[in-house]
Amino acid sequence: MPEKKRKIIAVIGGSEPSAEEAKLAEKVGYELASQGATLVCGGLGGVMEAACRGASSVGGVTIGILPGDNARAANPYVQIPIVTGIGYARNISVVKSAQAVIAIGGSYGTLSEIAHALQGGIPVIGLNTWSLSRNGQTDNSIIQAQSPTEAVNKALNLARD
Amino acid sequence: MPEKKRKIIAVIGGSEPSAEEAKLAEKVGYELASQGATLVCGGLGGVMEAACRGASSVGGVTIGILPGDNARAANPYVQIPIVTGIGYARNISVVKSAQAVIAIGGSYGTLSEIAHALQGGIPVIGLNTWSLSRNGQTDNSIIQAQSPTEAVNKALNLARD
Amino acid sequence: MPEKKRKIIAVIGGSEPSAEEAKLAEKVGYELASQGATLVCGGLGGVMEAACRGASSVGGVTIGILPGDNARAANPYVQIPIVTGIGYARNISVVKSAQAVIAIGGSYGTLSEIAHALQGGIPVIGLNTWSLSRNGQTDNSIIQAQSPTEAVNKALNLARD
Amino acid sequence: MPEKKRKIIAVIGGSEPSAEEAKLAEKVGYELASQGATLVCGGLGGVMEAACRGASSVGGVTIGILPGDNARAANPYVQIPIVTGIGYARNISVVKSAQAVIAIGGSYGTLSEIAHALQGGIPVIGLNTWSLSRNGQTDNSIIQAQSPTEAVNKALNLARD
Repeated sequence: MPEKKRKIIAVIGGSEPSAEEAKLAEKVGYELASQGATLVCGGLGGVMEAACRGASSVGGVTIGILPGDNARAANPYVQIPIVTGIGYARNISVVKSAQAVIAIGGSYGTLSEIAHALQGGIPVIGLNTWSLSRNGQTDNSIIQAQSPTEAVNKALNLARD
Repeated sequence: MPEKKRKIIAVIGGSEPSAEEAKLAEKVGYELASQGATLVCGGLGGVMEAACRGASSVGGVTIGILPGDNARAANPYVQIPIVTGIGYARNISVVKSAQAVIAIGGSYGTLSEIAHALQGGIPVIGLNTWSLSRNGQTDNSIIQAQSPTEAVNKALNLARD
Repeated sequence: MPEKKRKIIAVIGGSEPSAEEAKLAEKVGYELASQGATLVCGGLGGVMEAACRGASSVGGVTIGILPGDNARAANPYVQIPIVTGIGYARNISVVKSAQAVIAIGGSYGTLSEIAHALQGGIPVIGLNTWSLSRNGQTDNSIIQAQSPTEAVNKALNLARD
Repeated sequence: MPEKKRKIIAVIGGSEPSAEEAKLAEKVGYELASQGATLVCGGLGGVMEAACRGASSVGGVTIGILPGDNARAANPYVQIPIVTGIGYARNISVVKSAQAVIAIGGSYGTLSEIAHALQGGIPVIGLNTWSLSRNGQTDNSIIQAQSPTEAVNKALNLARD
């Protein structure tokens, strides 16, 4: 019989993060792996690389779902590169492959991932990231966290089965 | 020689709009077609259908980029159904096919389209739709309009060449 | 009420056709448009451009479903450019948007389109193109035609409703 | 430093294989895992499940790139489910994520995967599967193998770096 599957958590964020965001991402990756979760991300640099580096430092499993045609584009801490060849449409696969999503900073690509996750009913935890209003009303769907540890704990608690 | 191409404007919004949003969408479609623009949308019901109906009422060209496998899912005012079979990943095609985007109301699917448009540098005009803050700072990338006519005029003025 | 929709036929084939294939493609486009069908293709050069040129010469409607991020990549005879940003995954949209497919010459990209069409139950007519055997048995799913006129007539007759 | 990456080999084939094809697939999965390769597939039943079962029986790593929106659709031997939500467009990701492809039997979906692999320059090894002719000339791009062991050895030898 196959073993029980691990939780899979997505970490999303920009490829050009601030120093603080990169630090948050590395800590998030470290915590996720320490708690036995698999990390999935977009596979490139910045927040994605920092999170993979953190997870790798404690032997975690890291998946990178790449936009282009070549596995070599993956950051060096991606263990399992998925090569999609579909550009930004891979953003949807990143979040749909996860049971919860942690967003760190990020620009419009990250916002698209947040939106696709919320559309699919996948919990989104935010660290220094987007907040939303719809037609003038605050939308609290992004669950704001104050620290990497809080973000990871919330993600693991809310992870859809 | 082929004729000069028309401007292509996307209209995005939910499949279950309020009565007011549906009215705004129909007026937007009507104005776009009256000014000679081609309308592209996600091809389904709600805001998409209302916009196509408005455009059709003055002989406009309407394109519906559908998520599923069957052209029959298109609303009856879609002249040119594009059948993608790629689900929500078709949201990206809807906005990338346009020179500007008008967002009316909408939920997370619409938010994903707004994000993909902004990521690609495509102007987004909003009517009763999302507004954004990034890490506590207001992001004014969505250009808010107060009426269908204003939205259409702004979209046509800002349409990328 | 919206008018009755036209038949939509895909023309697929390589971007570097032989002179004979380009001639076949132009004639196919001409015949399709003469008989009132809309042409859909991958929007680029070679067979795609030749078919669009043929259709345009008699005022036909031409749709180009592009792999990249920019409508400018469309050949000059594409009236309606659809910009997908999903690379070769757009091959599926090209054939799924059609009621029948005409394949002219072509390499592995064209073969993928033939396969996706057959998988979806969409009739494929072949002109100087691939033929298939499955586990040693000839597979006659590609309906071979001997001329552009025969290909177009078969496509229009077999077009799924 | 991250460890050296394993070879990733795709196993493709139908969801309703013959008993013989299922046996071939299980043996291919077993051999791949025995030789330390990671297996990637479409994640569903039939050939995909048989190959994953074979790989799992010797502790191999198995990745399933799913067409739909739900990881539960994965066969029980998939360790790492990737949820794409893009339907048959995920076929491209399956082959692009691999350094070589082994095709076992299969119908038009499998043929599309073979075509996308060949288009991308990824070696394809065939077991009881499709063979191709292009405009009357045999195309030998699919490397035919006579046994699972031969298929696996050829795939590992030809695997692109």
